[in-house]
Amino acid sequence: MARVLERCRDLTRPALVDAVGRLHPWIGEMSAYALGWADPTGRPDPGGSEGKGVRQALAVLGAEAVGADAADAVPGAVAVELVHTFSLLHDDIMDADGLRRQRPAVWKAYGTGPAVLAGDALHAQAVTVLAEAPSRHTGAAVRRLCWALNALVSGQAEDLRFEERPWYGPGAVGPGQYRSMAEGKTGALLGCALALGAVLGGAPERTVTALDRAGRHLGLAFQAVDDILGIWGDPVVTGKPVHADLRRRKKTYPVLVALAGGGEAAHELVTLLSSPRPLDDASAELVAALVEEAGGRAATRDEARRHLDGAHRALRDTPLAHTAARELDALFTHVLDRTW
Amino acid sequence: MARVLERCRDLTRPALVDAVGRLHPWIGEMSAYALGWADPTGRPDPGGSEGKGVRQALAVLGAEAVGADAADAVPGAVAVELVHTFSLLHDDIMDADGLRRQRPAVWKAYGTGPAVLAGDALHAQAVTVLAEAPSRHTGAAVRRLCWALNALVSGQAEDLRFEERPWYGPGAVGPGQYRSMAEGKTGALLGCALALGAVLGGAPERTVTALDRAGRHLGLAFQAVDDILGIWGDPVVTGKPVHADLRRRKKTYPVLVALAGGGEAAHELVTLLSSPRPLDDASAELVAALVEEAGGRAATRDEARRHLDGAHRALRDTPLAHTAARELDALFTHVLDRTW
Repeated sequence: MARVLERCRDLTRPALVDAVGRLHPWIGEMSAYALGWADPTGRPDPGGSEGKGVRQALAVLGAEAVGADAADAVPGAVAVELVHTFSLLHDDIMDADGLRRQRPAVWKAYGTGPAVLAGDALHAQAVTVLAEAPSRHTGAAVRRLCWALNALVSGQAEDLRFEERPWYGPGAVGPGQYRSMAEGKTGALLGCALALGAVLGGAPERTVTALDRAGRHLGLAFQAVDDILGIWGDPVVTGKPVHADLRRRKKTYPVLVALAGGGEAAHELVTLLSSPRPLDDASAELVAALVEEAGGRAATRDEARRHLDGAHRALRDTPLAHTAARELDALFTHVLDRTW
Repeated sequence: MARVLERCRDLTRPALVDAVGRLHPWIGEMSAYALGWADPTGRPDPGGSEGKGVRQALAVLGAEAVGADAADAVPGAVAVELVHTFSLLHDDIMDADGLRRQRPAVWKAYGTGPAVLAGDALHAQAVTVLAEAPSRHTGAAVRRLCWALNALVSGQAEDLRFEERPWYGPGAVGPGQYRSMAEGKTGALLGCALALGAVLGGAPERTVTALDRAGRHLGLAFQAVDDILGIWGDPVVTGKPVHADLRRRKKTYPVLVALAGGGEAAHELVTLLSSPRPLDDASAELVAALVEEAGGRAATRDEARRHLDGAHRALRDTPLAHTAARELDALFTHVLDRTW
């Protein structure tokens, strides 16, 4: 799989470098840092903090899957990578998250104001790259990107609002509402990446929709796995403290499922989670055990498997070029290839 | 002039309300506040804190000026108003400016994270409205908006970087660099508003370029007047403290011209401005007097007049529909109709 990711990255890289190079130099510097290309002094980053480039690979494979030339997908691949970078940049500000890929987040390294501006620049540049693409399908592609941007923002809004809502009672967040938030926040851009490749490759609407659906399922599966790791993940592997999501009292799928089930464990959970005191090691351990006892962990595993299946099925049900479809299948599995 | 602004506002309003209504409800609430339609509790704002709507009027008159139907311009008018609102929202965060139109800025009223998100939503929605416009000219219009967004961000980046630069010596900000920053930060969107009206109205490239130029000149004239008022404006009229820009040690055109001239006054200015102490009333008064003595105020007046002339000339040199051209001329004058 690493070879496929590398091939897609190599194909996209010149256009991505070019897009970043056309930004204001200071913004370009922050962007290179955010993309993991450079450290905060502008020197090449030896730490290899670059992302895997899953989104650009989805765009490239999306084009190949509909029988088009990989090169057709490049403006889409660049656009989704830029949108992804912009959204991480702004999300870290909103979540007051000081670390990103084991380095200081952009707002920590450069300040909040500059990080807001760099995100705005990447957002605008993503649309620009697509709007200026030398393709007959530019208009449709820009509209797809717009839908994803709107979904991304709505998902993030839901996520922020969840924090204000109670753990139980009429205003509580249901697992279905969580899924819809995650589809916006995580699924929409993965779906868009695949869809853009297909749109720029000239695929019919039906195929584009199927690939979009595959990407959305992948995003939901990914989010479910992330939620499992946020509670039960090994800190050595995740790079985050143990029980990280519980200590931050994040309303994630496993907890919401456990609470929605009612019963003894749910009752105890509400008491622990509603307490204004920070969760110490023992309480976090207890919350994790109660969530598991109430079936939250198993349900989230099912959720991940169901959506991974959904992603594979969406590919299978659509006539696609054989090699690219196989590589997409492998990529889906690879994206979820963590211990959960 | 108020009648023309009102007509353009009435024409644009339903589509603008619709665009805001399609946002996530929480984002819609923040947007309604930012647009001056509602107070922070969501109730209609009796304070009338709504902007004049100059940008939407420029778009509408731009279409009429090229002989098109005003309705053609509406998606462009909505887009520029949304971009303007987004940029104010984010600029206030970057500049740590807690007041906007005599009310708390969005980040003060709702928090920094939500304000970042609301800005992102308005940014995305602006592009969406244009990308989905039922027009043959959608592609060209989206590209124009993208250019303006990029220029806006670059201008804001320059402005933020100016703060770090010295008052004199090789790294000092020259008046020409200031002008180029202001053209991006203020001129680009005004030019874009006019250009979008013309593009959506089906005008030839030459006419679009001329209207864009007119809007840029208007922006530069507006910025020059703003800089004069930031130093010598009457607090009762401006709603800002006297000498506001000097106290914040903003590198504005009058000061930069005064410094660039060298001589006795410039020398004294550098000493006062470079001091780490806050400027008290007497020092601010002295700085204002020195800037005036060194010719900074007169030069900025000239700058404003020159660009207002440039804006009118750009209209005159282009074949335009008579009534709309006359209304544009009047609007240009109206925009600068403050005591300077």
